[in-house]
Amino acid sequence: MTADGPGGPLAGVTVIDLTRVLAGPYCTLVLADLGARVIKVETPGGGDDSRTFGPFIEGKSAYFMSINRGKESIVLDLKDEAGCSTFEDLLAGADVLVENFRAGTMERLGYGWEALHARYPRLIYAACSGFGHTGPYAGRPAYDVVVQAMGGIMSLTGQPGGPPARVGSSVGDIVAGLFTAIGVNGALYRRTITGEGMKLDVSMLDCQVAILENALARYFASGEVPGPLGTRHPSITPFQAYATADGHVVISAGNNALFARLCAALGRPALAEDARFAENAARNANIDALEAEFEAILTTQPTAHWLALLEEAGVPCAPINRVDDVLADPQVAARNMVIRADDPVAGEVRMAGNPIKLSAYPDPEERPPAPGLDEHRPLITDGGGS
Amino acid sequence: MTADGPGGPLAGVTVIDLTRVLAGPYCTLVLADLGARVIKVETPGGGDDSRTFGPFIEGKSAYFMSINRGKESIVLDLKDEAGCSTFEDLLAGADVLVENFRAGTMERLGYGWEALHARYPRLIYAACSGFGHTGPYAGRPAYDVVVQAMGGIMSLTGQPGGPPARVGSSVGDIVAGLFTAIGVNGALYRRTITGEGMKLDVSMLDCQVAILENALARYFASGEVPGPLGTRHPSITPFQAYATADGHVVISAGNNALFARLCAALGRPALAEDARFAENAARNANIDALEAEFEAILTTQPTAHWLALLEEAGVPCAPINRVDDVLADPQVAARNMVIRADDPVAGEVRMAGNPIKLSAYPDPEERPPAPGLDEHRPLITDGGGS
Repeated sequence: MTADGPGGPLAGVTVIDLTRVLAGPYCTLVLADLGARVIKVETPGGGDDSRTFGPFIEGKSAYFMSINRGKESIVLDLKDEAGCSTFEDLLAGADVLVENFRAGTMERLGYGWEALHARYPRLIYAACSGFGHTGPYAGRPAYDVVVQAMGGIMSLTGQPGGPPARVGSSVGDIVAGLFTAIGVNGALYRRTITGEGMKLDVSMLDCQVAILENALARYFASGEVPGPLGTRHPSITPFQAYATADGHVVISAGNNALFARLCAALGRPALAEDARFAENAARNANIDALEAEFEAILTTQPTAHWLALLEEAGVPCAPINRVDDVLADPQVAARNMVIRADDPVAGEVRMAGNPIKLSAYPDPEERPPAPGLDEHRPLITDGGGS
Repeated sequence: MTADGPGGPLAGVTVIDLTRVLAGPYCTLVLADLGARVIKVETPGGGDDSRTFGPFIEGKSAYFMSINRGKESIVLDLKDEAGCSTFEDLLAGADVLVENFRAGTMERLGYGWEALHARYPRLIYAACSGFGHTGPYAGRPAYDVVVQAMGGIMSLTGQPGGPPARVGSSVGDIVAGLFTAIGVNGALYRRTITGEGMKLDVSMLDCQVAILENALARYFASGEVPGPLGTRHPSITPFQAYATADGHVVISAGNNALFARLCAALGRPALAEDARFAENAARNANIDALEAEFEAILTTQPTAHWLALLEEAGVPCAPINRVDDVLADPQVAARNMVIRADDPVAGEVRMAGNPIKLSAYPDPEERPPAPGLDEHRPLITDGGGS
């Protein structure tokens, strides 16, 4: 391996990566973090579009660098004979191919599943697209905000009666990348038994449906169409943000024992005996009254005061951390969730770490940087590196 | 197998499942959907708390039924000798153990990693907890809203200057379940090479940090602390919901070609030449002016009109679907993303399908139901079923 990673359960696995921007690259980031060798095949004329997404550090996209760390890069034109020839050499030595084109693109390039499987029977082929390779919307383009809107999560997020809100992280892309990584690893396991690869067809929209959880269950059970609830939970109370003197504090105390402890900590033990609040169902029914009772107390002191008091009392609580707060959190540091990569141009860059901590492998504080465009061509075309 | 699934890449894999409520059960749902046999070990006194979460269908929790389909159930008291003996018999025949207790619980029960690994060297042990097994917050309880707040996603979601908003689906739990499933599958693959299991330590908070994507990159590059943006994207315009005569339409047209096509479709081709909007960077800078221009047009007709027109023009767009709309969507139906299970008490129940579509396996429209409490004891303790 060139981009010499820390090892991991996928050490020895080679992934050919045709993906761009986010859903696919997030999948291959996870695979690289688990030790796979990921060879990013980029298009002539600049490669992955996200190389041009600002903001930049010394002219390099911070975003691109964070999502593509630990990968190698080669530029190939798949509409050109020489490009195809090199690409096919790569496939012959690969375990996995991942792409996130629109449905039909791989077939047009001559690399549809039937052709791939006939020629490379051990190759696992993972397609991660907006709408999948079947159905009336196959072939339509999608972006994160499109599938967040179509898949229902946007209808559940924000304030009741308020304007729509997108989840502030691209969960339309990322969740699809995660499901694709699960499927790739499952297919790798299966191949040790059967000797054969398979095709995965993962759709961003499908993945949004798969994470609707209690909203779907609620609708099927009651016919009630759920809407946004601010920070509240549809069936657990208290489980929300409350105003304090200088901001908010999140409190989760859904069972009666925790609720009693919370009321005692706030100096209002009688609230736990109040018929309006004695059981979770009653608290759900009287959620506004409970919020008024709590906020009358909580707005008398700043968030830090309440966090210290509630942590002492063993009541689950949290500040609403901004990104800078997250990065300063001692638990985040202790878990090595902010790692660094030494980029030859941008210098030391920081990014999120790998959340899958494994007893069998180290979790290094430094990971290899994202590749320069075509940086690894000599190594890759030498057949070296694996 | 009893709960006779459709097969899948994990067929033959046995998972002992100590998890409750959501993060862990979501992980084992994914494993079951991929063909694993999942034996849910539940506590005396009612089992998984989520069996009591409403709403109910014929007295059974719709939520529990949807997250636990295809699993088997046995009640065991792990503080009791007979319970431990049966549990250890199960571990001896198992491939994977998954739990989502607080850090330290397994050690107190006598089943910490050292003890497990010494006795069952091939067993893969996946722990999915609120804060992980290390660091100053190890051992603290966490709930979805707590890690959404602490991990930063809440600070990025909602309206600028508005009250905080939780992501309306439990992504604090679900994303942790997905990363755990990725790690389990990776460890299964590795075990085919090494013959040994490993421990996974996945934290809900870590997983939130891992999905911050461009918010982190932006902060590291510029020092700018990102906040909520409604439905807008921090660096792509247009990429948001716009008001129409009867609701909203989401439009994503971040590159110049798509933007020109969008302006033409709206009957305002000159907007694409306007210096304020000619490039993405200019559109970002003049996002309010562009919104005003677009909404002046879009509010003259209902959403359905604009969707038809924009789809015709090939511009990525979407309605903001409510849960009932999602379920009525022809693509969701074509992708088999709403499946059914035949529950012996509740009858036919519907739930989200499996988004990992595999060429090697069918994707049945019916899946086995969630287990009754202790339902599979005879089969499990017979040593049968695998």
